[in-house]
Amino acid sequence: MSVLDGLAVPVVAAPMAGGISTPELVAAVSEAGGLGFLAAGYLTADAVRDQIRATRELTGKPFGVNIFVPGDPAVDKAAVAGYADRLRGEALRYGVYLGDAVADDDWWADKLDVVLAEGVPVVSFTFGCPAPEVIERLRARGATVVVTVTSAAEARIAEEAGADVLCAQGQEAGGHRGTFDNTDPVSSVDPVLNPELNPTANPVPRNDLGVLPLLREVISAGSLPVIATGGLSSGADVAAVLVAGAAAAQLGTLFLDCPEAGTKPAHRAALTESAGTAVTRAFTGRPARGLVNRFLRQHSAVAPAAYPHVHHLTKMIRAAGDPEAMSMWAGQGHRFVRAVPAAELVRELAAEAKAALASATRRMP
Amino acid sequence: MSVLDGLAVPVVAAPMAGGISTPELVAAVSEAGGLGFLAAGYLTADAVRDQIRATRELTGKPFGVNIFVPGDPAVDKAAVAGYADRLRGEALRYGVYLGDAVADDDWWADKLDVVLAEGVPVVSFTFGCPAPEVIERLRARGATVVVTVTSAAEARIAEEAGADVLCAQGQEAGGHRGTFDNTDPVSSVDPVLNPELNPTANPVPRNDLGVLPLLREVISAGSLPVIATGGLSSGADVAAVLVAGAAAAQLGTLFLDCPEAGTKPAHRAALTESAGTAVTRAFTGRPARGLVNRFLRQHSAVAPAAYPHVHHLTKMIRAAGDPEAMSMWAGQGHRFVRAVPAAELVRELAAEAKAALASATRRMP
Repeated sequence: MSVLDGLAVPVVAAPMAGGISTPELVAAVSEAGGLGFLAAGYLTADAVRDQIRATRELTGKPFGVNIFVPGDPAVDKAAVAGYADRLRGEALRYGVYLGDAVADDDWWADKLDVVLAEGVPVVSFTFGCPAPEVIERLRARGATVVVTVTSAAEARIAEEAGADVLCAQGQEAGGHRGTFDNTDPVSSVDPVLNPELNPTANPVPRNDLGVLPLLREVISAGSLPVIATGGLSSGADVAAVLVAGAAAAQLGTLFLDCPEAGTKPAHRAALTESAGTAVTRAFTGRPARGLVNRFLRQHSAVAPAAYPHVHHLTKMIRAAGDPEAMSMWAGQGHRFVRAVPAAELVRELAAEAKAALASATRRMP
Repeated sequence: MSVLDGLAVPVVAAPMAGGISTPELVAAVSEAGGLGFLAAGYLTADAVRDQIRATRELTGKPFGVNIFVPGDPAVDKAAVAGYADRLRGEALRYGVYLGDAVADDDWWADKLDVVLAEGVPVVSFTFGCPAPEVIERLRARGATVVVTVTSAAEARIAEEAGADVLCAQGQEAGGHRGTFDNTDPVSSVDPVLNPELNPTANPVPRNDLGVLPLLREVISAGSLPVIATGGLSSGADVAAVLVAGAAAAQLGTLFLDCPEAGTKPAHRAALTESAGTAVTRAFTGRPARGLVNRFLRQHSAVAPAAYPHVHHLTKMIRAAGDPEAMSMWAGQGHRFVRAVPAAELVRELAAEAKAALASATRRMP
């Protein structure tokens, strides 16, 4: 039996790195019967340990920790240098320095040690699939291992490696695409749609499956339980993905305006005011969906596939506090955020899901 | 009460122009309790009348006719001429002529006269919203009027104009995007993601909402019943969109391999063999989702927003019979087609939908 079956409410609060998924948010969701998720990305291993312990002080219920899988550090150095040149005007504008465009592994080994030592009940991964030995070590320690996937091919790799659960991330989702390979096409450097810009690329389609077709692909590709995520913005949407075959629904954006979330005020305000979202490599060098602002518009077309190099480059620009140059990650359901405590949101989602199921069952008895 | 409420099975077979939605397919779906749809696009008004009468000989049940709304015939002539130059090699390769890149209104007024005269029970529109007077004439004749929308803004326009029902088309859908305005960004000419290619464009986000977030947006924007479509490939998906708030689910791709469909053999074969789909203007000058092939890869990046000019240009190339140069429209669920009669497919979808609802209700009683 998966940890998902034990949840009173089959709702997972997505891990949101950069200070948004606080221990308070995670504990509130788990206490309300859902599954909260700490986001280990960008934190030191010590900070992750502190957050795990802080969460444990607030709840005895299961929760998860999400870890970024390090990618290939080899990037097109000339493209990164060109992008850095382009961003010098931004740095001047905000009176900050550009960061060093270097690779790192986000303290991968240390973070694994922490979640193992702390006996975290659920550990999920993004940007790749850990080696089978890593997954086996976590499972031996009692953890449920979740791997984020965006295609049937990634689902097969994760099941083969020993994952317990898959998280199927539709194109609607906010924040980073979990895609294993950072050469997947996005926007104007799409090798399908723009072979002249990238004539040697494989003619693979854009990695842009919506959550329902992706869920169908992932379910068909194997036998693991699947968490569905991407653009879900109500309890009716939670029920919809359960009906479509998911074991649970994961929502990130919908928790962004909860008081427990570490979302910046400008980001909160933009959620309901912005005209919409787009997928971009402009902020970090990996495709991620965020609210459209000036920085995204001006730099997306030329941002290189270089992660975490670009993340480091833009760090101080993003931190300068201008909403037109911040990365304000959000999914396609961003207009429907609710400024209510997370536990209340989980209860509302559960009640709405049940009502939606009952209503549809009356139509098709 | 909308005609949708009267359906035994809340499944609509999408109108598929170009010979796919035959009277046999439409009648089989309606006879099985769903709603079949003739596609008037590209046909003469006389041919539409013949198809309506042929359908009526096969069923007494309600069915629909879909009509393309004419757009602005003004296009960038230099861009169209440049694209024609580019396609001369394709014409030579297949020993055909390029068509004349002209605008037409697809016999708009004549087709309206036909559906009025024939008393067609459901009339739907794509590529725009008819004038309120047109909608009122149809309603006065007893027709239910459906307008295809891809955003909340389009939904508000259609409700304001007097539509009875909206069809919310998610980005997952196969074939043409119903978007009212052909200047919406697509692929590498996206003005959001590529302002240097299109510096004067409005900074609007890509028109790429997945079916669930779009459904939420459209439901929130007004009060009309909504048909949801885009990437639905099973009865569980049908139930999912009902749970999410749709009055019915529309599926096109899933009917492509039914024996009654006019789908070409090469297109049928490619549905399960292709690696995937992409949205392109290469074949017709309007964004449409099709299976990725050589023509799509080679020309998408530079195809102009010129409809129906490009449709006419490429007509004979597409008709030459090479699967690498045909427009093989398909949605993201294309791998899940079933080679069964349409009535059987409708029955399978209904049974699966009920089973999926029951299963999810057991999880959230």
